[in-house]
Amino acid sequence: MRAIYLDNNATTRVDPEVVEAMLPFFADQFGNPSSTHAFGSSIREAVRKARRQLQALIGAEFDHEIVFTSGGTESDNAAILSALEVMPERTEIVTSAVEHSAVLTLCGHLEKTRGIKVHRIPVDRHGRLDLDAYETALTHRVAIASIMWANNETGTIFPVAKLAEMAKRIGALFHTDAVQAVGKVPMDLQPTAIDMLSLSGHKFHGPKGIGALYLRRGLSFSSLIKGGHQERDRRAGTENTAGIVGLGKAAELALKSIDDESTRLKSLRDRLENGIVQRVPGAFVTGDRLKRLPNTANIAFQRVEGDSMLLLLNRYGIACSSGSACSSGSLEPSHVLRAMDIPHAMAHGTIRFSFSRDNCDEDVDRVLEVLPGIVERLRSQSRSGHVADTSSRVRSGE
Amino acid sequence: MRAIYLDNNATTRVDPEVVEAMLPFFADQFGNPSSTHAFGSSIREAVRKARRQLQALIGAEFDHEIVFTSGGTESDNAAILSALEVMPERTEIVTSAVEHSAVLTLCGHLEKTRGIKVHRIPVDRHGRLDLDAYETALTHRVAIASIMWANNETGTIFPVAKLAEMAKRIGALFHTDAVQAVGKVPMDLQPTAIDMLSLSGHKFHGPKGIGALYLRRGLSFSSLIKGGHQERDRRAGTENTAGIVGLGKAAELALKSIDDESTRLKSLRDRLENGIVQRVPGAFVTGDRLKRLPNTANIAFQRVEGDSMLLLLNRYGIACSSGSACSSGSLEPSHVLRAMDIPHAMAHGTIRFSFSRDNCDEDVDRVLEVLPGIVERLRSQSRSGHVADTSSRVRSGE
Ligand SMILES: Cc1ncc(COP(=O)(O)O)c(C=O)c1O
Ligand SMILES: Cc1ncc(COP(=O)(O)O)c(C=O)c1O
Repeated sequence: MRAIYLDNNATTRVDPEVVEAMLPFFADQFGNPSSTHAFGSSIREAVRKARRQLQALIGAEFDHEIVFTSGGTESDNAAILSALEVMPERTEIVTSAVEHSAVLTLCGHLEKTRGIKVHRIPVDRHGRLDLDAYETALTHRVAIASIMWANNETGTIFPVAKLAEMAKRIGALFHTDAVQAVGKVPMDLQPTAIDMLSLSGHKFHGPKGIGALYLRRGLSFSSLIKGGHQERDRRAGTENTAGIVGLGKAAELALKSIDDESTRLKSLRDRLENGIVQRVPGAFVTGDRLKRLPNTANIAFQRVEGDSMLLLLNRYGIACSSGSACSSGSLEPSHVLRAMDIPHAMAHGTIRFSFSRDNCDEDVDRVLEVLPGIVERLRSQSRSGHVADTSSRVRSGE
Repeated sequence: MRAIYLDNNATTRVDPEVVEAMLPFFADQFGNPSSTHAFGSSIREAVRKARRQLQALIGAEFDHEIVFTSGGTESDNAAILSALEVMPERTEIVTSAVEHSAVLTLCGHLEKTRGIKVHRIPVDRHGRLDLDAYETALTHRVAIASIMWANNETGTIFPVAKLAEMAKRIGALFHTDAVQAVGKVPMDLQPTAIDMLSLSGHKFHGPKGIGALYLRRGLSFSSLIKGGHQERDRRAGTENTAGIVGLGKAAELALKSIDDESTRLKSLRDRLENGIVQRVPGAFVTGDRLKRLPNTANIAFQRVEGDSMLLLLNRYGIACSSGSACSSGSLEPSHVLRAMDIPHAMAHGTIRFSFSRDNCDEDVDRVLEVLPGIVERLRSQSRSGHVADTSSRVRSGE
């Protein structure tokens, strides 16, 4: 049985070309880019090349606007904490209710420990940001607005260029967590008012443990991790050269095929969604049908537990997820689904299928083949199961 | 001409066995350890194994006392910032004047922006900590004492077990930056009072961009990077699984040969030091001759610029460094040499040779062969050069 991986929003397979590009930087060109001796100079060049590859992918104006970090979470934390530090007179943050925990956990912490006021802008049933609420929250007390480019669970895309303009008008910085969007949708940052952007290698076939933070030229910035002068004083610590080179290669590969892949993934996704909705009663596609990542299908199933579906899909060799990777294990619907006000009975049975260039038509066929039976089985089990459960409770006197 | 790498305190070659151990975790076992599906479970086991390999290397009591980070700098930052956060009523830090910039830059920043008082305990001419000053600085106002296990420039080893006991007596936490010591000297943390310890993979033939923070069981800790629940809420962000597995393998390899290598490196180093002192007039070994890393030789040369020596050594294929990697490029003697009060004329001409298991007897022979001539040449050039320089200034009217 071929394993089918449909959890690419959690993490992706590193492209073999990326691995190949990284290999020389472990045991051969292992020097530090900052070293003055011969072991450093070729590495300096490789790091610069990677910076340019990322610059091209996101449409930055200058390669030095790219700062390498250890991943999306670090980039998100660095962006928000820096804004509070460089604008100490502003003590509010505007974000959305559906951000990744990398933003929301930090914000919650700042609220509790530093008295920062956090506006969590709500979304509608389709996951779209409440623009009026966003506008209202934007005052001169706001240091930073941080709104994701695309949501990891539903794939809903936010109008970040417009949101950045609105933040700029009141002098707040604008950061976007683009971890799920980079490499999936074309980007051209230069003409926008976006000040900072987070990305993470392992979401687009690069290695784990490497990411970047885009910092618009001229932006005041205070680094999260302090120490040596690496990355022009914006991120201390010996550079992860193999990771950087791998990230650069992943950016190059993503950019090369971004239009074709977008079309191809969309068609895979749409066929999956339509097929499921046709075959399974009580199945609904969540998120914004119009503005969505091409690779993400989030489907709610009435009267069935998401985790039980995952388990059975897994037995058929199909890997996907219910909610975000971080929240798996808990039985509560994710904060994203709760924010969208999806009825409880449905939010519990939500499955995310996320595609990548490693997927093909047969993967969709296979899911369509097994999923209707799985849902049917679980629904009938839960009907009889509930009875059994209740009776056992009665017996044990609970 | 075979290149001779004697800059192993800056970074080391990744051991080919480490690379081999990492490889499956890029394109094959690429899942997240936290995923509930089949792509996650084997990875969970691999991460656990790496944690145990590190536990064994540093003699921790429990494997969950190891938290994976992106490297030494992050670990240092995380340790110090956490201490201030969990003990908000204490607003002082005790550290040494010769710490790595990962500690000192952060401390300087905290002093400036948060009004934290930082005690930078001085060292003597041999780089040994002033124990009286340390004791005096330790009051109930101190949240954390952070003293490195071994200095990166001179190799001097600090009595961290004792220093930790002293800190404990006044209820302060004790952290040690052991980035230069881990893998080079045997460690047994369990019976000590050390609360936190930083290490970094690339200093002992592991990959760059991965490190760890040891956190004694039961310690209150507030994570530097906030987000998902990875690493038991002590370090958010998708786990760098390939890096973690590589770090684990590097730990295993280091532990296996730590005693033999220590003896072998010491003999290489001593032969180098004795050979240089015998052959080059005005050359002196710096640091604590008795308590030092086995692999580090830091030698001061009177009346010669360190950077010029580096350049010429480099032409002979020999890579080493003057001061720490971070400070290379600047002409000021490093903060470590200044703290040791090495006379200015000598501090300028200080070269660090740092060995690893990749070095052999011939490397020492080669340095001893070319170095005396290099120093002689530079000294005679600087005598005539000074004259030429002056005359050109006179001519151009400066
Ligand atoms: C939207 C979003 N932001 C941030 C992150 C965090 O990225 P990383 O796990 O690489 O730190 C993720 C994925 O985990 C994500 O989906
Ligand atoms: C003593 C010491 N501490 C911390 C570090 C920082 O480690 P890293 O560069 O892996 O972040 C280094 C090396 O650069 C070091 O020598």
